[in-house]
Amino acid sequence: MTDETTDLDARTKDLDRAHVFHSWSAQAALDPMVIAGGSGTTVWDHAGTRYLDFSSQLVNVNIGHQHPAVVRAIQEQAATLATIGPATANLARGEAARRIVERAPDGFEKVFFTNGGADANENAIRLARLHTGRDTVLSTYRSYHGNTGAAIVSTGDWRRIPNRYARGHVHFFGPYLYRTEFWAASPEEECERALRHLERVIQAEGPTTVAAILLETIPGTAGVLVPPPGYLAGVRALADRYGIVLILDEVMAGFGRTGRWFAFDGYDVMPDLITFAKGVNSGYVPVGGVIISDPIAAQFDEEVFPGGLTYSGHPLAAASIIGALDAMADEGIVDHAARVGSESIGPALHALAERHDVIGEVRGEGVFWALELVADRATREPLPAAAMGSLKSGLVARGLLPFVSENRIHVVPPCVVTTAEVDQAAAIYDEAFTDLARAR
Amino acid sequence: MTDETTDLDARTKDLDRAHVFHSWSAQAALDPMVIAGGSGTTVWDHAGTRYLDFSSQLVNVNIGHQHPAVVRAIQEQAATLATIGPATANLARGEAARRIVERAPDGFEKVFFTNGGADANENAIRLARLHTGRDTVLSTYRSYHGNTGAAIVSTGDWRRIPNRYARGHVHFFGPYLYRTEFWAASPEEECERALRHLERVIQAEGPTTVAAILLETIPGTAGVLVPPPGYLAGVRALADRYGIVLILDEVMAGFGRTGRWFAFDGYDVMPDLITFAKGVNSGYVPVGGVIISDPIAAQFDEEVFPGGLTYSGHPLAAASIIGALDAMADEGIVDHAARVGSESIGPALHALAERHDVIGEVRGEGVFWALELVADRATREPLPAAAMGSLKSGLVARGLLPFVSENRIHVVPPCVVTTAEVDQAAAIYDEAFTDLARAR
Repeated sequence: MTDETTDLDARTKDLDRAHVFHSWSAQAALDPMVIAGGSGTTVWDHAGTRYLDFSSQLVNVNIGHQHPAVVRAIQEQAATLATIGPATANLARGEAARRIVERAPDGFEKVFFTNGGADANENAIRLARLHTGRDTVLSTYRSYHGNTGAAIVSTGDWRRIPNRYARGHVHFFGPYLYRTEFWAASPEEECERALRHLERVIQAEGPTTVAAILLETIPGTAGVLVPPPGYLAGVRALADRYGIVLILDEVMAGFGRTGRWFAFDGYDVMPDLITFAKGVNSGYVPVGGVIISDPIAAQFDEEVFPGGLTYSGHPLAAASIIGALDAMADEGIVDHAARVGSESIGPALHALAERHDVIGEVRGEGVFWALELVADRATREPLPAAAMGSLKSGLVARGLLPFVSENRIHVVPPCVVTTAEVDQAAAIYDEAFTDLARAR
Repeated sequence: MTDETTDLDARTKDLDRAHVFHSWSAQAALDPMVIAGGSGTTVWDHAGTRYLDFSSQLVNVNIGHQHPAVVRAIQEQAATLATIGPATANLARGEAARRIVERAPDGFEKVFFTNGGADANENAIRLARLHTGRDTVLSTYRSYHGNTGAAIVSTGDWRRIPNRYARGHVHFFGPYLYRTEFWAASPEEECERALRHLERVIQAEGPTTVAAILLETIPGTAGVLVPPPGYLAGVRALADRYGIVLILDEVMAGFGRTGRWFAFDGYDVMPDLITFAKGVNSGYVPVGGVIISDPIAAQFDEEVFPGGLTYSGHPLAAASIIGALDAMADEGIVDHAARVGSESIGPALHALAERHDVIGEVRGEGVFWALELVADRATREPLPAAAMGSLKSGLVARGLLPFVSENRIHVVPPCVVTTAEVDQAAAIYDEAFTDLARAR
């Protein structure tokens, strides 16, 4: 550690505290970790302190940090044409769109590009309302869909509460057997009752008023809530019965996170609109979008689509999508995520649950897992915030960046995480849980 | 023109028509121009056909296409660390924030970064509502503030109409003497009456319900509506009188467009919140943000700010801001924009108005001008859409990319436009107007 690098960490922190206003936080007590560089599953500060990134930041760096093919694609496009308006045609934009629709099911030929997941959901909601001529958007209480007008009010978690300035949003409960809202005792019962509940909400709201059902295929920030078999197919059937557009939000779950290109590829369900961001280019350049099924796209052949943005189909973002998707395909990164999930992460987390009573449930697949932590396995009382805080500090002190949300640790490394890194992380989680048990 | 380059143009267009869903358009009839590269005020297709860009795309490429310092900053940051989560501290992010607040007035120390102008306005509205504990946002009918939930409903133009799903928005008329809403005969009268109208709207809505007045300092897409002397100071006085937060939207007007760092630097007015995007990095990487005055920022020292996004303070975007702002300062680009506006563009446009009756009014400053086109100077009847369409085609055919909105041509080249390029453009406008006059 030289003086110069220490100075850079100090300067970074000083500038941050002086001038950067942070997301979802009270600002005074923040003490953000300095990150200066990264590679694969590892990040580091200027002084060279290294961390295993088992958060993928906000579950977006699917291809790992600083993948050389994506870096090169960005550098080359920057040298050619960094930006151009959305009314033009641009080769990188078209090539990115082609790669995305090639991963989507048949019957999805067009992509509307946005700057991230929030405005992807905004525009999917817009398309659904214009397609149906209806207003209401149904989404679940356990969800996050973005921070802008309609996206934040679609969101079910606490972040919606101070932001309710959009109309036409109604929330319902999704399946979550561990904390069932339906007095269910089995996955089959949870599924059947969750569908019954959704149909009752549709009926009670008035079926002819409902434009869209907006669902994260696997609710992510809410706890990696893998849906029970049959649930998504049941939602599709309800959408068909009542003429409702089904929007699957694949912002977090899509592009490799589950070990599949889209999370819904693992279920018997076909959406009408697919929203994406994060994994499509691992966030190397801000981008998101909506993949539009042919019947909805066709409506706007002659009718003006009333949405748009300056950076729609941004060439630099498009180039990073091309770089990321080609590298993920060429290097088998999505298959690797499936394998490392079933062969390493899953077994390691279940082994931890054997050793530590604090783990109430292990859920997930691919590189998309949650440990639900409880004060008591019998009552399932969530582990209190103070204990979660010391657990988080313990993990960071041992060199692991965790993703902590409420009483859960989400185990969400990049898709490229190695078995050795999983072993290393499992040992760190194990030590931190052991410390926690000692302290309680 | 080689076969290969022609093929690339054809391939670009084919991919676009097959897979790219475009902003604010019916899709079937689109025939987007292929753009493959650019430099300064010029862009070109793969075959090498060159165009003078007098649109700056969507009035965002202030520093010109492919400025080497910005390209280099992007390439270097891509090699170091393309992305990192918003909860960390990052040197590029801090340095970008510092440069932005250094351009802002005293009393603005913090920046909340977003992905573009729309979510900048979303978050400014959020801050204003939380700061005042009030709901209503006042904005003008002649405005554009972005395409997401609250931003599109703040927008006054037609794009709001199919998107009215946010509550708490009320519109009023701003000053626009050429088509006065107030039966005014002079700038002084327009100003006084526009302020009286705004105060009456505040009173009629209930002053204690109004959170914010959201104004483009110079309404851009609505027609480069330079406010009359005293108007913005009068709005500030009304905001003070009724405890309302004043948000100035500098997304299009800021960072050099007017020949000043901020458009409001030219007026006797101090906002509470400043939103920006476009010119801050010329859109080389998608980014925007809110510059927050100290009293509003301080509220969130202890109180959680309920807004955020995955790419807030994105390192690649931050690096491009550093590159762009440093180059603009080092090369005197903002001063150049002021000078080329007053010495070349203004005189050239006024000379065109002398020669062509179709020009009803010339408005603007810096590289931010509008020609208001009329069928009849006496009645000020707007030039019909068909004539606007043939004018646009005529300009493109002569090698100029125009910015056309309703019955106006906005003359909005990059800040780096040369006098020779202004002369060349003026000759093209002159020929196109001559052709139009012949055809009518």
